[in-house]
Amino acid sequence: MTEIDIEQNVDEAQSAALELAKLSDEERTEALHEIADAIEARTDEVLEANEKDVTEGERLLEDGEYTQALVDRLKLSESKIESITEMVRSVADQEDPLGKTLSARELDENLELYKVAVPIGVIGTVFESRPDALVQIAALGLKSGNAVILKGGSEALHSNRILFEIIEDAAADAGVPDGWAQHIEAREDVDALLEMGESIDLLMPRGSSEFVGYIQDNTSIPVLGHTEGICHVYVDDEADLSMAEDIAYDAKVQYPAVCNAVETLLVHESVADEFLPAIADRYNSADVEMRGDEATREIVDVEAATETDWDTEYGDLIVSIRIVDSLETAVDHITTHGSKHTDSIVTENADRASTFMRSLDSASVFHNASTRFADGYRFGLGAEVGISTGKIHARGPVGLEGLTTYKYHLEGDGQLVATYAGEDAKPYTHEEFDEEWNPGRLSDE
Amino acid sequence: MTEIDIEQNVDEAQSAALELAKLSDEERTEALHEIADAIEARTDEVLEANEKDVTEGERLLEDGEYTQALVDRLKLSESKIESITEMVRSVADQEDPLGKTLSARELDENLELYKVAVPIGVIGTVFESRPDALVQIAALGLKSGNAVILKGGSEALHSNRILFEIIEDAAADAGVPDGWAQHIEAREDVDALLEMGESIDLLMPRGSSEFVGYIQDNTSIPVLGHTEGICHVYVDDEADLSMAEDIAYDAKVQYPAVCNAVETLLVHESVADEFLPAIADRYNSADVEMRGDEATREIVDVEAATETDWDTEYGDLIVSIRIVDSLETAVDHITTHGSKHTDSIVTENADRASTFMRSLDSASVFHNASTRFADGYRFGLGAEVGISTGKIHARGPVGLEGLTTYKYHLEGDGQLVATYAGEDAKPYTHEEFDEEWNPGRLSDE
Repeated sequence: MTEIDIEQNVDEAQSAALELAKLSDEERTEALHEIADAIEARTDEVLEANEKDVTEGERLLEDGEYTQALVDRLKLSESKIESITEMVRSVADQEDPLGKTLSARELDENLELYKVAVPIGVIGTVFESRPDALVQIAALGLKSGNAVILKGGSEALHSNRILFEIIEDAAADAGVPDGWAQHIEAREDVDALLEMGESIDLLMPRGSSEFVGYIQDNTSIPVLGHTEGICHVYVDDEADLSMAEDIAYDAKVQYPAVCNAVETLLVHESVADEFLPAIADRYNSADVEMRGDEATREIVDVEAATETDWDTEYGDLIVSIRIVDSLETAVDHITTHGSKHTDSIVTENADRASTFMRSLDSASVFHNASTRFADGYRFGLGAEVGISTGKIHARGPVGLEGLTTYKYHLEGDGQLVATYAGEDAKPYTHEEFDEEWNPGRLSDE
Repeated sequence: MTEIDIEQNVDEAQSAALELAKLSDEERTEALHEIADAIEARTDEVLEANEKDVTEGERLLEDGEYTQALVDRLKLSESKIESITEMVRSVADQEDPLGKTLSARELDENLELYKVAVPIGVIGTVFESRPDALVQIAALGLKSGNAVILKGGSEALHSNRILFEIIEDAAADAGVPDGWAQHIEAREDVDALLEMGESIDLLMPRGSSEFVGYIQDNTSIPVLGHTEGICHVYVDDEADLSMAEDIAYDAKVQYPAVCNAVETLLVHESVADEFLPAIADRYNSADVEMRGDEATREIVDVEAATETDWDTEYGDLIVSIRIVDSLETAVDHITTHGSKHTDSIVTENADRASTFMRSLDSASVFHNASTRFADGYRFGLGAEVGISTGKIHARGPVGLEGLTTYKYHLEGDGQLVATYAGEDAKPYTHEEFDEEWNPGRLSDE
């Protein structure tokens, strides 16, 4: 595809976005249900296309170019397709993120300002080889009224093509404006997308930290994405140690591959003698490799941690342990080595919890809970769009709300700024009130 | 200053930001009042320094390098300094944008999630020659708990230096952590700032559209800024024409130099014969230059508009006029030529207003009101941080809230994710409730 083609794709998406924004929640919901039905009805076609990707993947596995894990992620089955359609229906049935009046303020009599939730516009996404990613992103985009540019991994090309075709057809049948979703296939086109700040409003890359970092560094388009998760649990000297043990265990062992798993335990020196042997037993029973600082290794028999350990996201059954002499040292360690993702303090002392939570600049700061709770579903945000490690617009776990922005709607009956300026300026009333935007409101009164 | 110096400045700001975030509203408010007092007390020093800038400015004016307007903007007086200190006190007394619990949700019994407003961190600002800009940005930063990097115009260097010194001294006396504000002097350092995505969280450039555009195109740091304002008033066939006349007049004449002034009038063909002569009289009386399309010029005697007129922000007593055959054509014109800033429809028909407001992707869409209302003060947002033409994070007029982000605080009593996963998974309750975050809440119960 040439750069001109890509620009045409994105232009089409931009025009479609304006039409899409006008669909009602019922229309968007209905379209998503039709997409789910269509995927279900055309399961055989999807499996057939997927078979081509898997065969090619296995060939590259033999050549040592692919890993088994990659081929496994690629592979669809009837039951996987079932869970994909279930996911689409669940996104369909989420509460509508659009149209809500976020705030309403009377500026003066019959001059009413409404802040209304609207779609962002055009969202560019570049994602990993898992074929369900294309479906999920398209579904989240449609539910939130955004046009989407979809660029999947080349490993899943055949699967993505047929899934895209099914989605496009079903959405068109349901009255969704043509062009709302665009499928981009070539790796080179990603760099063209990064330059299109005039027409793409937000980028959502998914993949390795390096990949997301590359996107962030090479575009002036806002990026909603997730780089690193170096999460900490700090066991305070006033911790309930049995609670600390459970939390440290859960945060590492329950699912070590994810970004909200703990990587470093910080233990107050006055409880280390009691706490470390106990947690070491638990970790040993789960085959967790421990790497400790010198002080830790005087208490328990573990590997030595090096400076790089403090900066490493293992994503695996490995944990680093450091003994600290104070809450302040723990905070300093996290500020220096953390990734501003999720950090938890275990303590019975509310003041110390407050200091910890206020001192850290992390998206999620927890008190007496496992870091693993940092997740859109657990937070009750509904469909999870992703986790953001940025601070602007959306931070931490992001729900559909993260794919919206707002517009100011002002309803007047002929007001002029001149009336409110100069010597005899009329004052503004500026009073908040509780009412949904309705353009007929003033004339009905 | 070398690049290393700049990095040191920004590092200092980053460390200070963490301390600054812990100050109470009382401490920040008090510091701002002390800054205002100090500026007042040291008025003579400020005027003396400003005199140097003005003298240099007048020299460059003679050489034809500066404009009179620039020299005027540069010049301070006792009364201007008074209005600067008044502004600082008014920012001081704004409602605290920090610490508010934005939402609270029970995930399960004694597992409570709070979304809490916090500062963004480090804000980089590059601004015009007006010396009050430095004071205003420092004040907004301090009130919202953000560290600020201040780069002013070289024309105001002496004024900025003394104002910065006064602010720094007064803030330090009031207990604000050292390093929270950094003054950068060299033009070359701006490019170094643009590369510091690791340590600068947000950029706020102020200046010409070209300048803000340059910043946006040359950084991956999020930018809160304002480029163009090409605003429209559409006079519908169901408009109250006398109201339309007043709005079109106010939107152009009340203050033509600002971004929310109207640049193009779109008039429905069925009312053009009646409306155009009337508004032309009003505009003529205020020396507004009109440029119309062919159909307009058949009705009133005005200059011819060219294609470039539709894309031009005049910022002056000039207006372009086009006759359209429908609401849809008006919407298309605005979508093609507008800048997504502020657009207003004049109509007595609520459905047509609704269509207009829903169809446009503009930050502010108005019904029967002058475009000139698009402003933070008029919207009741308190201190105005600026107007954003971006869609992400903050859109349209931005108050102090735009300088905040949020953190998730989770309060538990030892909850583990394992309890809520697998076969016997405990369900989440996910119920919103109305309570401020207080880390002692669970233990107090």
